[in-house]
Amino acid sequence: MLTGLNVAVIGGDARQLEVIRSLSEHDANLFLIGFDQLEHGYTGSVKINSHNISLEGMDAVILPVSGTGSEGQVEAVFSAEEVVLTREMVASTPEHCIFYSGIRTKYLEELMEKEKRKLVPILDRDDVAIYNSIPTVEGTIMLVIQHTDFTIHGSNIAVIGFGRTGMSVARTFAALGANVKVGARKQKDLARITEMGMKPFHLSELKDELSSIDICINTVPALVLSSDVLAAMPIHALIIDLASKPGGTDFHYAEKRGMKAILAPGLPGIVAPRTAGQILANALTILLTEQHQLERSMDNGSER
Amino acid sequence: MLTGLNVAVIGGDARQLEVIRSLSEHDANLFLIGFDQLEHGYTGSVKINSHNISLEGMDAVILPVSGTGSEGQVEAVFSAEEVVLTREMVASTPEHCIFYSGIRTKYLEELMEKEKRKLVPILDRDDVAIYNSIPTVEGTIMLVIQHTDFTIHGSNIAVIGFGRTGMSVARTFAALGANVKVGARKQKDLARITEMGMKPFHLSELKDELSSIDICINTVPALVLSSDVLAAMPIHALIIDLASKPGGTDFHYAEKRGMKAILAPGLPGIVAPRTAGQILANALTILLTEQHQLERSMDNGSER
Amino acid sequence: MLTGLNVAVIGGDARQLEVIRSLSEHDANLFLIGFDQLEHGYTGSVKINSHNISLEGMDAVILPVSGTGSEGQVEAVFSAEEVVLTREMVASTPEHCIFYSGIRTKYLEELMEKEKRKLVPILDRDDVAIYNSIPTVEGTIMLVIQHTDFTIHGSNIAVIGFGRTGMSVARTFAALGANVKVGARKQKDLARITEMGMKPFHLSELKDELSSIDICINTVPALVLSSDVLAAMPIHALIIDLASKPGGTDFHYAEKRGMKAILAPGLPGIVAPRTAGQILANALTILLTEQHQLERSMDNGSER
Amino acid sequence: MLTGLNVAVIGGDARQLEVIRSLSEHDANLFLIGFDQLEHGYTGSVKINSHNISLEGMDAVILPVSGTGSEGQVEAVFSAEEVVLTREMVASTPEHCIFYSGIRTKYLEELMEKEKRKLVPILDRDDVAIYNSIPTVEGTIMLVIQHTDFTIHGSNIAVIGFGRTGMSVARTFAALGANVKVGARKQKDLARITEMGMKPFHLSELKDELSSIDICINTVPALVLSSDVLAAMPIHALIIDLASKPGGTDFHYAEKRGMKAILAPGLPGIVAPRTAGQILANALTILLTEQHQLERSMDNGSER
Ligand SMILES: NC(=O)c1ccc[n+]([C@@H]2O[C@H](COP(=O)([O-])OP(=O)(O)OC[C@H]3O[C@@H](n4cnc5c(N)ncnc54)[C@H](OP(=O)(O)O)[C@@H]3O)[C@@H](O)[C@H]2O)c1
Ligand SMILES: NC(=O)c1ccc[n+]([C@@H]2O[C@H](COP(=O)([O-])OP(=O)(O)OC[C@H]3O[C@@H](n4cnc5c(N)ncnc54)[C@H](OP(=O)(O)O)[C@@H]3O)[C@@H](O)[C@H]2O)c1
Ligand SMILES: NC(=O)c1ccc[n+]([C@@H]2O[C@H](COP(=O)([O-])OP(=O)(O)OC[C@H]3O[C@@H](n4cnc5c(N)ncnc54)[C@H](OP(=O)(O)O)[C@@H]3O)[C@@H](O)[C@H]2O)c1
Ligand SMILES: NC(=O)c1ccc[n+]([C@@H]2O[C@H](COP(=O)([O-])OP(=O)(O)OC[C@H]3O[C@@H](n4cnc5c(N)ncnc54)[C@H](OP(=O)(O)O)[C@@H]3O)[C@@H](O)[C@H]2O)c1
Repeated sequence: MLTGLNVAVIGGDARQLEVIRSLSEHDANLFLIGFDQLEHGYTGSVKINSHNISLEGMDAVILPVSGTGSEGQVEAVFSAEEVVLTREMVASTPEHCIFYSGIRTKYLEELMEKEKRKLVPILDRDDVAIYNSIPTVEGTIMLVIQHTDFTIHGSNIAVIGFGRTGMSVARTFAALGANVKVGARKQKDLARITEMGMKPFHLSELKDELSSIDICINTVPALVLSSDVLAAMPIHALIIDLASKPGGTDFHYAEKRGMKAILAPGLPGIVAPRTAGQILANALTILLTEQHQLERSMDNGSER
Repeated sequence: MLTGLNVAVIGGDARQLEVIRSLSEHDANLFLIGFDQLEHGYTGSVKINSHNISLEGMDAVILPVSGTGSEGQVEAVFSAEEVVLTREMVASTPEHCIFYSGIRTKYLEELMEKEKRKLVPILDRDDVAIYNSIPTVEGTIMLVIQHTDFTIHGSNIAVIGFGRTGMSVARTFAALGANVKVGARKQKDLARITEMGMKPFHLSELKDELSSIDICINTVPALVLSSDVLAAMPIHALIIDLASKPGGTDFHYAEKRGMKAILAPGLPGIVAPRTAGQILANALTILLTEQHQLERSMDNGSER
Repeated sequence: MLTGLNVAVIGGDARQLEVIRSLSEHDANLFLIGFDQLEHGYTGSVKINSHNISLEGMDAVILPVSGTGSEGQVEAVFSAEEVVLTREMVASTPEHCIFYSGIRTKYLEELMEKEKRKLVPILDRDDVAIYNSIPTVEGTIMLVIQHTDFTIHGSNIAVIGFGRTGMSVARTFAALGANVKVGARKQKDLARITEMGMKPFHLSELKDELSSIDICINTVPALVLSSDVLAAMPIHALIIDLASKPGGTDFHYAEKRGMKAILAPGLPGIVAPRTAGQILANALTILLTEQHQLERSMDNGSER
Repeated sequence: MLTGLNVAVIGGDARQLEVIRSLSEHDANLFLIGFDQLEHGYTGSVKINSHNISLEGMDAVILPVSGTGSEGQVEAVFSAEEVVLTREMVASTPEHCIFYSGIRTKYLEELMEKEKRKLVPILDRDDVAIYNSIPTVEGTIMLVIQHTDFTIHGSNIAVIGFGRTGMSVARTFAALGANVKVGARKQKDLARITEMGMKPFHLSELKDELSSIDICINTVPALVLSSDVLAAMPIHALIIDLASKPGGTDFHYAEKRGMKAILAPGLPGIVAPRTAGQILANALTILLTEQHQLERSMDNGSER
């Protein structure tokens, strides 16, 4: 239980409601900022106006998956007003306060460094990234079905990258009956791709390997689908680029060549906000519980 | 090869283009009715105005998947004019002419009986129905993703019916990581469901079995999701009804109770028209080849 | 419950113990013939000497999976004496008595016809055959592993036949990572093989299709692997023939050519006697319950 | 190509023949020690008597998977004589000579340290361990089928460990229709187990989680199945321990309690020596090619 822990939740979308629900069930004291349009009340939670407010006494601050914009703006779909995380707000927290966000942004990192607060970008965690790969895959499936006039079953698909997301993507499209080949650069990845019954290839062979595919799904956050690779692909091939912005595709060239290439960020929040929210909620509940226990054991220590 | 065979193709959508392409490649003489807006020309095909035209000399007539409407109207997305199959048109065909459509309709059946022509509804064929189940499944996946805020993976899904479509639906949702239970009434179906690693139940237990599911996909063309069954389901459960119109759901009651229930006919033509067209094209090419060979062998016979 | 039903169980192996256990739990009156070496006593069961005994008063007689030999011999591994089903024994049963065996044998069929008793060969039932395919597949896997020096994963396997056993065999070897092609003669089977993600071929192409496989598993009870088909196969290919005796392989030719070909009957009883016994027990319990209910309803009818 | 590279192959079993075949095809100069009983000759290979021989001029020495015994004994199934790797032999190699074995042994490591030679235990490599997991899994399947009287399909199986072998084991038994739960201690492993459709549990819950399983397959090389864990398991449960000797099971206690527990080392070489040999051959060919290229580039460098 999180009894006694003061947690500020600043902004976010439907996913954050799952976080609030879970923390509320675990008896945290919740302070909701940027939820003025939200009807539903949660036990033990207080709604606060979004303007430059003090975060005094907070043990933890939870930001949305997207962190902050370059000026500190916080996405807040349940607020009619702009929500901003300012330096003053951060400074007002006690020293031991931990900030949790989905990803790290430049603005956040600089602010945390200046004010010497700890930032935990929870999407960096392997377990969260793997759980998140599940809704990501389903979003990818939806996009592929919407943007082709043929079935996934029986089609030739290349997946680029075999990390936390790539393994899930490859595995699932193979389960749907596609002929899946997967490109990676580590020998151990090529071995696992083989073991899982898919066709492995080394990224150095990318150009050749993409020459007769129907669909290419990229998960590598580096320019792998460069213009010369694109030029070697069938012109009708569909590209779904999952890598974080700006993706791994030369979209400019793809467009010029008349290829359909889609950059598709943030799929979990779009196709399965509830599941995506539960993933965050579970991870945050575990992390806050650990933080809570640590703090209490330290308090006990200092009391002696 | 279909050299010398006269085939009229009347109406249809993008799928029919695959049929035309295949028959054209097999050297049939094609007469296209209801394709006046189509730019592309196919070798050996002649476009004909859609109005009450003679089908004299035709060996085969191909109608769209939907057959005809109750007054003989033929769907024809590539025509600016209304296309109708009239009794006169049927009467103008030689006696040996065979009519192919997707499904049988009352109008068609009556007309064929009156004029003593043979009707082949190709979606009745087991092989065509099974191939068609593949795009049907993908359409169902797309709908489920679009209409839920949670992932298929990990959700509780009941599939009703284990025929040609039901087996594909159940198998694929299980492959996506859902907990799938399947309702059927034949012992052999319950056995196969078990063998395939899913949970079987007898349709007589439907009410109980649906009491805690997230998604119900129906393939039985009979009123299985009646009001009392619906009343026993969780109110948030999503129903996708694949059975041919009017489906197997009491939609009126579902709406009254505030449940989301979607009748989703014709998915193959919507989500994968090219694949769906190829399925029809393959089947028709085989059927016409058989017809052609039979006719030639009979001609040879009668010549002697 | 089977209260009041008199059932004689004559012979059998470990599987029959599951049958006895289940019938005993359902409160049938059991008469065990050919179980003299069995220590364990089951409630409500009576052991009887194996010699020419009367079956007077029996409602049902359960024979082993193998039925009887050509002279009426009944396999009975728990008996030190020979057990034989004689005409006199059959004649001693009441007219309504039903005989249950695994398969039909010539001796049994003739006897039943002469004495006008009903014979139910339960392995003929689709559901039983499908459940039985599960241990059959596992036995096949074991044989393949034992008789090859390479892995199933990555090997090229042809499965002949796509009936109740063939589908399970094909599906499971594909799940193990083999490249599986399946030969059948019905268009609907070729469609289902495709839908399930395997490579279909028509049996008319058998010779060509087997020319580069590592393992061939036959389920067709007809001479499909004839000498000329065998001659076209790689000499190192392993053949597992599951079809009932004499199998579908020209074993004589295979041996002459130095090919390893194994006829493997009765796998369920060998590799998973408990599961195999439970399959029989479930089926018999259902069948006897139906018989019991029918008899009671008829009794009630005649009483009136 | 390995032209000009001098490679001594000392001992081994059928797997080493695949290694010899591959290196021979890549044009290495092979010196075979401990192959006196081998009929077959490989191009470019020389057989040498097994007695204390000089390894002068060797660029690489290949030992069996098992490395050496505690006194330097080398397994050599194709030799009638004892084969021993002595300090003198190692000392006779040029300084740049690399020793390849499957696993590291104490004797080997000490010898290599004394003589300052490099030892490469190729089974340590992730890719080799993953490829090797494939025959390991098939050996495990065979053992499970042989040692149970029920089917894998439908049984309750716990896999302990989710490393390179554990993932393959779990995945494959699930594909066979077992209910698979997997125990691990890393959050990311629990996430991947979930994503793959199996039930995860934390190793701290081991005792509880094993209380109703039919089969337990261990891959953790540490005492996880201790006496108190075993005591909480069903007495009929089968244990297959894959971890390297002495395994992760208290075999003494298991025997005392009457539980069937099998330590099953070296499965790849037993059930699929050809595949296992090819895995080694591929890995060694890659490693020797890298070594060869490096040496040549250094030679070129030093020549300057
Ligand atoms: N669109 C969405 O909704 C969505 C959802 C989840 C994740 N994502 C994004 O998807 C991407 C992958 O996420 P992840 O969790 O799978 O990350 P990950 O586990 O780190 O995997 C990244 C993969 O890319 C490869 N890679 C990285 N840099 C490379 C380079 N320069 N050249 C070749 N290969 C390279 C990695 O190979 P090595 O192991 O060899 O480095 C690995 O296979 C990220 O950009 C993430 O933000 C998007
Ligand atoms: N929405 C789409 O895009 C789409 C695509 C393809 C098909 N469909 C439609 O889906 C439906 C199923 O097609 P299919 O090819 O799977 O047909 P099918 O092979 O005939 O299967 C029908 C299933 O429904 C069961 N069933 C039929 N009548 C029943 C009754 N009165 N009570 C209980 N169960 C009953 C059958 O069980 P038994 O074997 O025990 O009779 C069987 O399991 C059809 O209406 C078809 O038109 C729709
Ligand atoms: N070894 C064991 O332990 C074991 C266990 C179970 C079963 N079996 C045996 O395995 C065999 C198959 O059993 P099952 O339950 O799968 O039977 P099934 O469902 O009747 O299937 C038989 C298959 O063989 C095909 N077939 C039959 N006759 C054929 C012919 N003349 N030419 C071409 N194909 C033909 C059938 O095709 P169509 O549908 O086109 O006719 C079907 O695909 C039987 O002999 C059975 O006794 C053995
Ligand atoms: N029998 C055979 O034929 C055969 C074949 C191949 C391999 N093996 C043996 O199988 C074992 C596993 O091989 P592998 O390639 O899978 O190794 P691996 O990739 O290192 O995996 C080892 C697994 O054990 C866990 N583990 C290690 N020490 C642990 C501890 N003290 N407590 C809890 N968990 C622990 C690891 O978890 P963490 O990641 O959390 O450390 C990991 O899940 C080895 O002993 C290997 O020699 C046997």
